[in-house]
Amino acid sequence: MSKQKPSLPKGTRDFGPAVMTKRYFILDTIKKVYQKYGYAPIETPAMENLSVLQGKYGDEGDQLLFKILNSGDFLSKSTEQGLKSSKELLPAISEKGLRYDLTVPFARFVVMHQHELTFPFKRYQIQPVWRADRPQKGRYREFYQCDADAIGTNSLLCEAEIVLMIQEVFQNLQQTKPDTLDYAIKINNRKVLSGIVEVIGASGKETDFAVAIDKLDKIGEEKVKEELAERGFSAASLEKITPLFSLKGDNFEQITHLKAFLKDSEIGSKGIAELEEVFSILQGLGADVPQLELDVTLARGLSYYTGAIFEVKPKNVEMGSISGGGRYDGLTDNFGLPDVSGVGISFGVDRIYDVLEELDLFPDAHQESTQVLIVAFDQESWNYSLRVLNSLRVNNIKSELYPEPVKLKKQMKYGNDKNIPFVIVVGSEETKSGLLTFKDMAEGSQDNLSISEILNRLK
Amino acid sequence: MSKQKPSLPKGTRDFGPAVMTKRYFILDTIKKVYQKYGYAPIETPAMENLSVLQGKYGDEGDQLLFKILNSGDFLSKSTEQGLKSSKELLPAISEKGLRYDLTVPFARFVVMHQHELTFPFKRYQIQPVWRADRPQKGRYREFYQCDADAIGTNSLLCEAEIVLMIQEVFQNLQQTKPDTLDYAIKINNRKVLSGIVEVIGASGKETDFAVAIDKLDKIGEEKVKEELAERGFSAASLEKITPLFSLKGDNFEQITHLKAFLKDSEIGSKGIAELEEVFSILQGLGADVPQLELDVTLARGLSYYTGAIFEVKPKNVEMGSISGGGRYDGLTDNFGLPDVSGVGISFGVDRIYDVLEELDLFPDAHQESTQVLIVAFDQESWNYSLRVLNSLRVNNIKSELYPEPVKLKKQMKYGNDKNIPFVIVVGSEETKSGLLTFKDMAEGSQDNLSISEILNRLK
Repeated sequence: MSKQKPSLPKGTRDFGPAVMTKRYFILDTIKKVYQKYGYAPIETPAMENLSVLQGKYGDEGDQLLFKILNSGDFLSKSTEQGLKSSKELLPAISEKGLRYDLTVPFARFVVMHQHELTFPFKRYQIQPVWRADRPQKGRYREFYQCDADAIGTNSLLCEAEIVLMIQEVFQNLQQTKPDTLDYAIKINNRKVLSGIVEVIGASGKETDFAVAIDKLDKIGEEKVKEELAERGFSAASLEKITPLFSLKGDNFEQITHLKAFLKDSEIGSKGIAELEEVFSILQGLGADVPQLELDVTLARGLSYYTGAIFEVKPKNVEMGSISGGGRYDGLTDNFGLPDVSGVGISFGVDRIYDVLEELDLFPDAHQESTQVLIVAFDQESWNYSLRVLNSLRVNNIKSELYPEPVKLKKQMKYGNDKNIPFVIVVGSEETKSGLLTFKDMAEGSQDNLSISEILNRLK
Repeated sequence: MSKQKPSLPKGTRDFGPAVMTKRYFILDTIKKVYQKYGYAPIETPAMENLSVLQGKYGDEGDQLLFKILNSGDFLSKSTEQGLKSSKELLPAISEKGLRYDLTVPFARFVVMHQHELTFPFKRYQIQPVWRADRPQKGRYREFYQCDADAIGTNSLLCEAEIVLMIQEVFQNLQQTKPDTLDYAIKINNRKVLSGIVEVIGASGKETDFAVAIDKLDKIGEEKVKEELAERGFSAASLEKITPLFSLKGDNFEQITHLKAFLKDSEIGSKGIAELEEVFSILQGLGADVPQLELDVTLARGLSYYTGAIFEVKPKNVEMGSISGGGRYDGLTDNFGLPDVSGVGISFGVDRIYDVLEELDLFPDAHQESTQVLIVAFDQESWNYSLRVLNSLRVNNIKSELYPEPVKLKKQMKYGNDKNIPFVIVVGSEETKSGLLTFKDMAEGSQDNLSISEILNRLK
């Protein structure tokens, strides 16, 4: 057991108190909104059987799974002598992996507990996931996901409520400075994309269409058309699609144009009807969501989503999407339970953290942190301070007495480093008079107050 | 990708909404008490380098570490051809493991962040840990630990505050039925144990002494003496120890006897002085802790603790210790940072869960769960209900509208299964009159109320 300089596995992070307080602020905000809309929490184990995880994320995903070595003499199950290839050896020495996302564990959960659950089932889940990705700025090997899903109903109320949850989360995250973050809640519908390619005579080519049109903002209409041509879209298709490039106006104007454009496509018309229904439910709810923008170029998770598609994009901060989701079918098909459809949303905690940091949106005072530090000049004052400490705590005030009557400067530094907003100084005079020196660190003021006056100030 | 019946790795658990709500109740209660006493949260990654974990938990502990297979072609680092033994192959194919407890990661954290931290450093940490133990009733391969530690000070205020935190946690957990759980907060001091063996002429044999005396309640004085004799305690030692077996009375009476018994042992007298100081600080704090019991047979974690030792034991429920801790030296010695002493406490969430369940102490109503379900007779009522839903949510009431106007029975079952305390029924009459049927499910009552009357009821 030699002495060693310890290190962290690459792509992983420690979170100290200051960062944790900010992370809790984000997670608690999301959690409260999920709860307000009737989503209930679940947790699943960090480890899943590899049979559950493998084959769900494509070949690349399988590569990125962290696999756990079987316990004990793991080679004992390996029948052949001689060193095989990693690929051949793997199934003999590893049966478990760390979860890669929260969706597959949720699907497994639903199948295993289907007889205990009441549908529609609305769950949220906030837990870390692990991916053996190459670490880089903003990409970690361990990070939290924050998902909410409603399964077992096709009601578009769920979609409308997802829009409202997004709005409420970002409203509550900006309590300190309302409307500092400018952002769009983009909405589209997979059926609209299917309808568009059908109408232009390129059925089934949603993915090619999506990949190209996604670049419209960056490379412009002509280049997008070139790319579509390269991807096998005919000249006739490209001509037919032209009106879409000039799709302008508010959501209702766009819908009017799209309705006409898609009138001969059954699936496209269905997509438009669904979008209209979501807007109509929002109206029924009396909701005003100026951030909501219909965007027919939005094709996030195309291979997965079957109905609504959502994405949240900051406008006044350089940052990719900070939340996304959509409606899907066949969540649990892989596990032998067909026809489970649902709709979900996920918030990107790390990116939201960076956005709030950049816009200076984290609240200064944190309810969870120590409110009052008591510092004492000497042992006698320290003994007296115990009573003061007790009075504060009986009144449920988060408070600390510096554990030893060391030099005042050291005690004050402790309070400062911990960002404690109020300090009570106790010396021989204070113990005699019962009037304590009460410092408000933010205001830089100080007063001589009795303990009951201090309690009143703090309430 | 064949369809498969999914399963969970053995020793791991899913937590559905009902269990999660109860677990949150426990974890939030502990968290709030930690915060009230000035402990701040940290989190560390699930994965640690094996160099950090190995050699810290003994040979058996090393066996119980879950090891993570290196990514990609993990055999490429294995220099020799031919299949080696598991033990030889391991270092070549695995460099990371899952954390086994929160103490070693905390030590690593302190060393790596020592220049950013202000000492004394008081942190709490609530995260899962993993052990490849044989699963059995009450023993899992993934479970939460809930630790708080104060390092960088020898002040016995920390010990006194640990006693108070324990008391406050169990008080707050019993809000619904105060004093239902009868329990002892046992306290001892490692130095007292050292003093006892010194006084009886068996210096260094604390462990043998502790193992034997621990059985006093079960096997009685004579058998304990037999075991001590087997463990090499001389007849003279056994005679000298006899007064300890009849140690009776309250904490102060015991201390008086022990003081006399240990008067010739410097370390023993130091231990008694420390215990007295803890009691004195508690008195200074005005604390009344009838649960606190000095117990010289308490030797939990003997190899680790150097000062105070704590353990919490239920008295009216069959259950082992539900919380424990103590003071230690050299937390970070293994990582090359000497002289970091501290004192810590840990709560056993799974056992506390079982205790609260057995004594029926979980609160019925959960603040985090949906308070109101709106059910609608038909589409028109459903559309009207959107407004009602909006009024509730604007007033921050956790509420849901059943997503479709299906059969009332199905909607009511949903509310019942989710344990939602209030239901609003909306039908054609209600939409006309504006008076809604408001059901209090616990009381079994119902009234026709306007939405503002309902809001008043709910406040």
